[in-house]
Amino acid sequence: MTKKVAVILAGCGVQDGAEIYETTLTLLRLDQRGIEYRCFAPDIAQREVIDHHRGEAVEGETRNVLVEAGRLARGEISPLAELDAEAFDGLVLPGGFGVAKNLCDFALAGSDMEVLAQLRDAVVPFHEARKPIGLMCIAPVLVPKLLGSGIAVTVGNDPGVAGAISSMGGLHRSCAVDDIVVDHENRVVTTPAYMLASRISEAGEGIFKLVDKLDELMA
Amino acid sequence: MTKKVAVILAGCGVQDGAEIYETTLTLLRLDQRGIEYRCFAPDIAQREVIDHHRGEAVEGETRNVLVEAGRLARGEISPLAELDAEAFDGLVLPGGFGVAKNLCDFALAGSDMEVLAQLRDAVVPFHEARKPIGLMCIAPVLVPKLLGSGIAVTVGNDPGVAGAISSMGGLHRSCAVDDIVVDHENRVVTTPAYMLASRISEAGEGIFKLVDKLDELMA
Repeated sequence: MTKKVAVILAGCGVQDGAEIYETTLTLLRLDQRGIEYRCFAPDIAQREVIDHHRGEAVEGETRNVLVEAGRLARGEISPLAELDAEAFDGLVLPGGFGVAKNLCDFALAGSDMEVLAQLRDAVVPFHEARKPIGLMCIAPVLVPKLLGSGIAVTVGNDPGVAGAISSMGGLHRSCAVDDIVVDHENRVVTTPAYMLASRISEAGEGIFKLVDKLDELMA
Repeated sequence: MTKKVAVILAGCGVQDGAEIYETTLTLLRLDQRGIEYRCFAPDIAQREVIDHHRGEAVEGETRNVLVEAGRLARGEISPLAELDAEAFDGLVLPGGFGVAKNLCDFALAGSDMEVLAQLRDAVVPFHEARKPIGLMCIAPVLVPKLLGSGIAVTVGNDPGVAGAISSMGGLHRSCAVDDIVVDHENRVVTTPAYMLASRISEAGEGIFKLVDKLDELMA
């Protein structure tokens, strides 16, 4: 039986959506290991649109998370509301600031953040079924409020984000860019990716390890 | 001395810009081999904007090629008009329909296509200096009118595009998705990528070979 993984995207672009390289390298590694995947994204407006050339917000422009994430999925994407955990063996959430802007409001509210209801509805059944979940970059900030307290994760070594994770009930572990943190009891795997990476190949090393570990946990 | 490669992007997204996976895997392989890179894109309006979820054109929306390509470059991008061949050892053009819509008008005009003037100004000096040029997916359709006739390239086995290349004076060679065509005399390397790939790892195999060959030619 071929294993199947769902990948949840927060848009398309590091500043306002899903991180493009993290997503692409996740899909590459899944495919290299013969694991099928399907991308999902919420059919909601992005919190903002960032001009990635100038690095500034574009006033008055609106984009839809599902439509933009469709670019990153080459059109092969479904609304997050249609994600059924029973059809998959595991789950991956790449990073990018869209996670902290569109999938929750961590970018605005910090540790007072709330998780998007349809993300909770989609992800919690994976956790309850003990299917492994991988999160990278800023996405581990979701874990305490999404999956519960006492779960070990990493965002690298950023003291602000690590502190926020702790204050929400999570356990933050420092981690090198090319490594992963595994909470075996909770079947959660995390890697710093572009929270630390200065080169794409660095991010790739941690991401490949994360996918390889998920594959092992799905065995 | 570290080798340096320029990468020219046509936007961000397979249907109206640069193909995201082709670009990302090119950058990954360059970085894995210790080759520095810099991305460039023309500061012009996209010919159209495609909703990649629904697969249809969005009427009345305008996006800028440089700004959108900035997503794919994580903001590390420069206007194509600033590309100076003297500062680089080689050049790569990933594919995506943006190449046939924004860098030339092949998507509209077929073999009567014209090449964007600033693309010609940027690329021809590489060719004149005998610096190697890699092109993938649909991008090899540029070669006859951009670099001259009689240069061997591949877009895989698409008879329509191959015929157009021939009618413009190019030499089309059929090629498998995991392989490359090398015109040693002209120092041009091409691979079919998503003209043929049905899986990201297939595209990756040809793209990695293309980058490895460019590295060899830059020695």
